[in-house]
Amino acid sequence: MNGQLTIVGLGPGPKDWITPAATEAVAGADIVLGYAPYVNRLTPRVGQVLESSDNREELARAERALELAASGRRVAVVSGGDPGVFAMAAAVYEAVEKNPASADGVDIRVEPGVTAMLAAAARIGAPLGHDFCAISLSDNLKSWATIEKRLRLAAEADFVIALYNPASKARPQQISQAFDILRRVLPDETIVVFARAVGRPDEEIDVTTLAGAGDMACDMRTLVMVGSQATRKVTSGDGRAWVYTPRSERVR
Amino acid sequence: MNGQLTIVGLGPGPKDWITPAATEAVAGADIVLGYAPYVNRLTPRVGQVLESSDNREELARAERALELAASGRRVAVVSGGDPGVFAMAAAVYEAVEKNPASADGVDIRVEPGVTAMLAAAARIGAPLGHDFCAISLSDNLKSWATIEKRLRLAAEADFVIALYNPASKARPQQISQAFDILRRVLPDETIVVFARAVGRPDEEIDVTTLAGAGDMACDMRTLVMVGSQATRKVTSGDGRAWVYTPRSERVR
Repeated sequence: MNGQLTIVGLGPGPKDWITPAATEAVAGADIVLGYAPYVNRLTPRVGQVLESSDNREELARAERALELAASGRRVAVVSGGDPGVFAMAAAVYEAVEKNPASADGVDIRVEPGVTAMLAAAARIGAPLGHDFCAISLSDNLKSWATIEKRLRLAAEADFVIALYNPASKARPQQISQAFDILRRVLPDETIVVFARAVGRPDEEIDVTTLAGAGDMACDMRTLVMVGSQATRKVTSGDGRAWVYTPRSERVR
Repeated sequence: MNGQLTIVGLGPGPKDWITPAATEAVAGADIVLGYAPYVNRLTPRVGQVLESSDNREELARAERALELAASGRRVAVVSGGDPGVFAMAAAVYEAVEKNPASADGVDIRVEPGVTAMLAAAARIGAPLGHDFCAISLSDNLKSWATIEKRLRLAAEADFVIALYNPASKARPQQISQAFDILRRVLPDETIVVFARAVGRPDEEIDVTTLAGAGDMACDMRTLVMVGSQATRKVTSGDGRAWVYTPRSERVR
């Protein structure tokens, strides 16, 4: 092998949610590439180069990472959360598909991480305790017709639905459209969780219903979870509340 | 608060896939409860009690954990992977729902972990790079009719499908039945990944198609991933192969 390319998941934010394997992969790299907010979390060691780029440039970043690794460097590409979920690992394999020879002799590895929906679920209770799905609302990468179809079928299947990339400056209205589609299938009282900046100092988690969800603010750092018909609030005797989905459909 | 109850994800197996927060939560506990194969991964510190039970006893374990915590102990309940995905976190909140007063004064936390599908995906490439769902095939906890309906709708939605608990000694035939259902919607050449014991010394990953999937062995330590119509193999110039799903549906 000429060089190494490791696509690394940095988790949702806090250092103590980064696996030791991910920490080691970053520490062992000669050069680290990634979207600026993720690269900015790192402190370079002596002799290590950190290189940030924009989040619209994922394929170009993947191609550059392969090129650097093929030249014999140890390269890490960092993603927030898990690099395999709507993130850089797929971009690297897309670059390999486009130019198979660019991966020749490169030892390519993926280091998994805690993806946003797991961290958000942990903070609010256990909403992902039963069958669930994850849908990215970014329509840079797929048609709105596909998103609409998947939302409808996911609601009919009674999955808990985790919505990644629910809104951006360019498309603030899509999450409202998504709720409109879900309301055609799901009752108004379906539980919806808005988890913002989980694990960061400005973390904020709100629980509402599908009827009230359209009024909630949301941005690219928000993870939205729409409950199944079994998802419910649970309250302790002393008045603290959580959201969970029972493991069994027999819990009523 | 009287005591602490932390439900901790130990990841798929290797120590370097356990988050520092999870390691700390286990180290800080007076007593650690869990299914034997997970508890057996731990080395107790002096004065710490480890207590194993069977995997059919999740609700009883949750109730005992709450009782111990309410008496002032620091309790950790451990799960493999992430504790919020088909695991102990939902069991604990189910116990709270059954007996709200049992949680009074107990500081309940969930420490997320790397769930099996993320580790399996990392090993084989990036099959979860686009929209996906996770379905547990265990019919202890739901009817087969529900499983059948979800499989059909997930295939119609063109999700990548991660199947947890695909088989056990009591129900070795269910995974074949699941493939039969999927074949009614998906073409024979749909990619299927069998990831066994990911991260363990006996790890084994096989890639096949839906037509050939019925012949593959599988047990409770296997995670099965059925590709979407966009999931494909990618091969480097020097002949190594991975499986990935492009981030964009426009990659053809």
